Amino acid sequence: MNDTRTLRQPVVVDSASTRYARIKPVAVTAVDLLGDFWGRRFATNIEKTLPSQWDLLESTGRLNNFRRVSGDYEGPFEGIFFNDSDLYKWLEAASWVVARGPNALLEKRIDEGIALIERAQDDDGYIDSYFSLERKSERWSNLRDLHEMYCAGHLIQAAVAHHRATGKRRLLNVAIRFANLLCDRFGPETDGKIEAIDGHEEIEMALIELARETGNDQYLALARFFIKARGHGLLAGGRFGDAYFQDDVPFEQMEALAGHAVRALYMSCGVTDLHLETGEAGLLPRLETLWDRLVAQRMYITGGVGARHDGESIGADFELPNAQAYTETCAAIGSMMWCHRMLAATGDARYADLFEWTLYNGMLPGWSLDGDAYYYVNPLENDGGHRRQPWYYCACCPPNVARTIASLPGYVYGTDADSIYVHLYMESDARIDFNGRTVELRQRTRYPWDGAIEIAVDTQGEFSLKLRVPAWVDGAAGFVTARDGAAVPTPRNPSIGLSVNGQTIDAIANEHGYIAIQRLWQPGDVIRLTLPMALRAWQSHPKVPDNRGRIALSRGPLLYCVERADMPGVDLDELYVDPQSLEAQWREAQLGGVVVLKGPADKRAIEPRWTGALYRPLTQAADTTQRDDATLIAIPYFAWHNRESGPMKVWLNYRGE
Amino acid sequence: MNDTRTLRQPVVVDSASTRYARIKPVAVTAVDLLGDFWGRRFATNIEKTLPSQWDLLESTGRLNNFRRVSGDYEGPFEGIFFNDSDLYKWLEAASWVVARGPNALLEKRIDEGIALIERAQDDDGYIDSYFSLERKSERWSNLRDLHEMYCAGHLIQAAVAHHRATGKRRLLNVAIRFANLLCDRFGPETDGKIEAIDGHEEIEMALIELARETGNDQYLALARFFIKARGHGLLAGGRFGDAYFQDDVPFEQMEALAGHAVRALYMSCGVTDLHLETGEAGLLPRLETLWDRLVAQRMYITGGVGARHDGESIGADFELPNAQAYTETCAAIGSMMWCHRMLAATGDARYADLFEWTLYNGMLPGWSLDGDAYYYVNPLENDGGHRRQPWYYCACCPPNVARTIASLPGYVYGTDADSIYVHLYMESDARIDFNGRTVELRQRTRYPWDGAIEIAVDTQGEFSLKLRVPAWVDGAAGFVTARDGAAVPTPRNPSIGLSVNGQTIDAIANEHGYIAIQRLWQPGDVIRLTLPMALRAWQSHPKVPDNRGRIALSRGPLLYCVERADMPGVDLDELYVDPQSLEAQWREAQLGGVVVLKGPADKRAIEPRWTGALYRPLTQAADTTQRDDATLIAIPYFAWHNRESGPMKVWLNYRGE
Repeated sequence: MNDTRTLRQPVVVDSASTRYARIKPVAVTAVDLLGDFWGRRFATNIEKTLPSQWDLLESTGRLNNFRRVSGDYEGPFEGIFFNDSDLYKWLEAASWVVARGPNALLEKRIDEGIALIERAQDDDGYIDSYFSLERKSERWSNLRDLHEMYCAGHLIQAAVAHHRATGKRRLLNVAIRFANLLCDRFGPETDGKIEAIDGHEEIEMALIELARETGNDQYLALARFFIKARGHGLLAGGRFGDAYFQDDVPFEQMEALAGHAVRALYMSCGVTDLHLETGEAGLLPRLETLWDRLVAQRMYITGGVGARHDGESIGADFELPNAQAYTETCAAIGSMMWCHRMLAATGDARYADLFEWTLYNGMLPGWSLDGDAYYYVNPLENDGGHRRQPWYYCACCPPNVARTIASLPGYVYGTDADSIYVHLYMESDARIDFNGRTVELRQRTRYPWDGAIEIAVDTQGEFSLKLRVPAWVDGAAGFVTARDGAAVPTPRNPSIGLSVNGQTIDAIANEHGYIAIQRLWQPGDVIRLTLPMALRAWQSHPKVPDNRGRIALSRGPLLYCVERADMPGVDLDELYVDPQSLEAQWREAQLGGVVVLKGPADKRAIEPRWTGALYRPLTQAADTTQRDDATLIAIPYFAWHNRESGPMKVWLNYRGE
Repeated sequence: MNDTRTLRQPVVVDSASTRYARIKPVAVTAVDLLGDFWGRRFATNIEKTLPSQWDLLESTGRLNNFRRVSGDYEGPFEGIFFNDSDLYKWLEAASWVVARGPNALLEKRIDEGIALIERAQDDDGYIDSYFSLERKSERWSNLRDLHEMYCAGHLIQAAVAHHRATGKRRLLNVAIRFANLLCDRFGPETDGKIEAIDGHEEIEMALIELARETGNDQYLALARFFIKARGHGLLAGGRFGDAYFQDDVPFEQMEALAGHAVRALYMSCGVTDLHLETGEAGLLPRLETLWDRLVAQRMYITGGVGARHDGESIGADFELPNAQAYTETCAAIGSMMWCHRMLAATGDARYADLFEWTLYNGMLPGWSLDGDAYYYVNPLENDGGHRRQPWYYCACCPPNVARTIASLPGYVYGTDADSIYVHLYMESDARIDFNGRTVELRQRTRYPWDGAIEIAVDTQGEFSLKLRVPAWVDGAAGFVTARDGAAVPTPRNPSIGLSVNGQTIDAIANEHGYIAIQRLWQPGDVIRLTLPMALRAWQSHPKVPDNRGRIALSRGPLLYCVERADMPGVDLDELYVDPQSLEAQWREAQLGGVVVLKGPADKRAIEPRWTGALYRPLTQAADTTQRDDATLIAIPYFAWHNRESGPMKVWLNYRGE
């Protein structure tokens, strides 16, 4: 076993040496998140989220499930059959943390976890604590429903992360042995193998990452096999139907992402990785088509994906109910993972736009401000009964949040041959490996509360610094740029302030959505970028029934909502809002410090007109609606339900109608 | 075995001798449905629906499941574990038919079916073909999920129907033996019995009907035990939660019907039967409260119940999505069954109102015009992909439709000590047993197409004939009268025409919603009732998000919808309707003969304003919406999708906004 540190960079998706990546990744360890927003959250993840999740892995029997395989624990298997994956995701998260430097507690836990896994691995490389002992004979017997390769995928991702983070091969060796078993057993029938796929995608992107990490292309070949074998009804979908598993139509012919949201998005990650590695004809255009349709017809304004509780599925075009939105936190994360890969493949800022929007408005709501409670389901409207939980029986989301936050520094920047990209604006210090030297960048900003961003370049060198212009800056565009959106001006140059060393320069975005500043940088150079934090009111496509006559509010990258806690006694359904009268106010003491939106609103009584009746004959005469004055206070959607229970709404009645 | 005909009347719910029924039932055989609407449908049920369903019971293995228990068939159990209930419901339906007179085919099938059941019954009385042979040891091991008592209930209902219809005791004896086994085994722990309940209500109303049929009160006592034991978490609800099974709160404390819709409604039937038998304090007020809340907050305008695919459940207040409506056909039938019992308990027309509205708009859409295809799920808006099927893997709905249609004659009339009630207007001949003599009534009408109803009384005698005034007649009320609806005038006397032998009389409804005509009737007396078939536009409570800015259309008891088939090339989402411009037209050749609603409408283009974007910044400037003229044609909702596939909508954009 080779336990020495390699020189490999700890990046999440290692497209550094693939031929088809336009943008290369920056190491997770290259960036320190600072400040009250991300610095604090990053620390909370390390100090609270990860330790408390480990305790839950222990107390819910997830660790004992491994111990019983190795004979170190007597008792039944506990919980749901894919519980192993929760430990794997936790290990991935913790690995990204220890990559940054010593953390005695997490290092100890990581070693404990890896030891459990090592001891639970079979001689042939198989590992899944559910399918051991009394269920050993059932291995591979129900790939459709029982997630063996899904768990294998998370094991591989954890192992790759641990190897990249620490240089240690212990977990990587476990993963390689299991991956080799998969390669021996599954593949084309003509090779004497079993033609089968797993019901829950995940193994595809994991195998490709393992191929990147080891240089062994058999893993890429198996991932490609799984992708190509999908869509031919191999799974025999049963009561959910083939579409639930993305097994109804081959990827090349897919017209829209559908079925189980997390599966569909993880599949898309795997296919994008396949494109990044092989450049295989047809994949990227199809990925772009699917992404465009998702964004234009099947996505919540939170960036969340998944309209249906039934089958945890994406739903039909324009099917986007607010109160019954499913929008699993894992689906938001899956979308971010896909966006990150599409950004690498295309270099287009639209994918960073959606990554950022989903980070703030799709994923972050799934994590409490305290750092130890989570949403699995993220409705856009609620009566107050939906509260974050410290854990779930199906606990996929909590450790998924942890690994995303732990790796977030790796998503801030990117590079190509002659540019450094600033994808995300976050207070941070960065040391970016770039053409053989280290470029130091310091971002100072109160973003997302404030649009003023100062970037200090502390390294000499000639290169292009490319600043992303978020789609939300443009008052005529969406929060993510439609590919063919006629309303989107190109180049995008709205009311952005931009200077270098005090000298104003034109803020003209290129066709990829970045402002390129090419110069011979000198230590001490300072860029000042000011993004206009205008308040926006959004309207929704008229085919979305829930949003008719309603508006949603945003400021900068943050979507807003209203909560009963700020408007005691007001029925939120009776509130009518005029966005032009609202103003932003900083509230230091509230919800950990937030900008609220405040202004006058109407309160239009529903009662007594509607007492006791659900339907009534249409009256042509004007209703004498009672209107009272009210004060609207909106808070960032990510912060909802961190106070007492009460109704919440994102889409508000529009006073202008 | 006593196989001689008894004198017992073939009624569906035999409240004839219960102390707490205000209205007594009329026999299924007392009424012949005639004419193009109900006469034709009644015949279709006998000639097409029932024979084709028998063939499906055979071809899908449902009959073989019984044969394998008795050793007459070798092979595995086929299908889903509660498939026995489909044969039982079919036998109930066929029994109501043969009660009317000879039908060689159905009589033969009934005897075949009963023979199968007899041979499959265990020595101890147990019968459930799923839990026989290899699964015998699993009996009663999972009452929560596996429907043993649900199947028992349908067996009992079939047996009672068969006995009432034919006087034969063969099936009744089978049912009694099984019911006795239940009585021996289940009940209060203090009696040395097992305190348990079934996850799917049905056994409660069945046992009470068996008590009525046999006079044996132990069945009533067991039904009462099951009702009282519910709501205490006995089932340990698992992933669905206790509320799914109505096991989260005792009935007496229930604030709203919730959870699985069919279960909740069948439970309500059982509790109403318990009230009818015992008058136990508190039950009826709670039933009324639950019914009011259901109607005022959780019911589709079709009368359908069940907003969620997830858990087939009712959903929250005002959660009534149209395209994703679940509204199982069985739930509509369950609601009708409950309404029938509430009508008996209270004498209030509001229950007949909802029975009728749900019959036409909630249940009838589940049955194709041809009589051999069914909906399980009944959306109020569809893109064209949802088509009726000849059968389902879970086939509860098709035979439920068959038994409801077969017993429909029993719902038309009712009696009390000195009145005959006309609950439903249907072309028909009736011979009603009333205070020792037979009263003959002939209804002649084209209802529901026309509001003119002629009722000839062909018997001498003094009594009160009570004519229901449907709630939809009142232009200010709903299609069902809210209990405390301030908008409802009492007595209800809108523009109804009423005469006896040509002499106009005042059409004043009493507080129960019926116009009472008390006189010494003579053969040849003729009542002419004219209900104004006004076209109504309905608006929905503003808390129902899907229906904002929309209207639904009705005429008489029929809800309408629009289909692409009548408006080729029109995007139904772009259609804006002004109900005042519509007129009714009879179309003899269309959909078996229907009244359509026709008139001018606007077509307001959504594109190109919304190309490629799902959300966009609100523009304060007025949209230059392109408006084109279009012609609206609406058809009765029950007739939707009996032509080519295409989009359908019930709730239409209102041009007035």
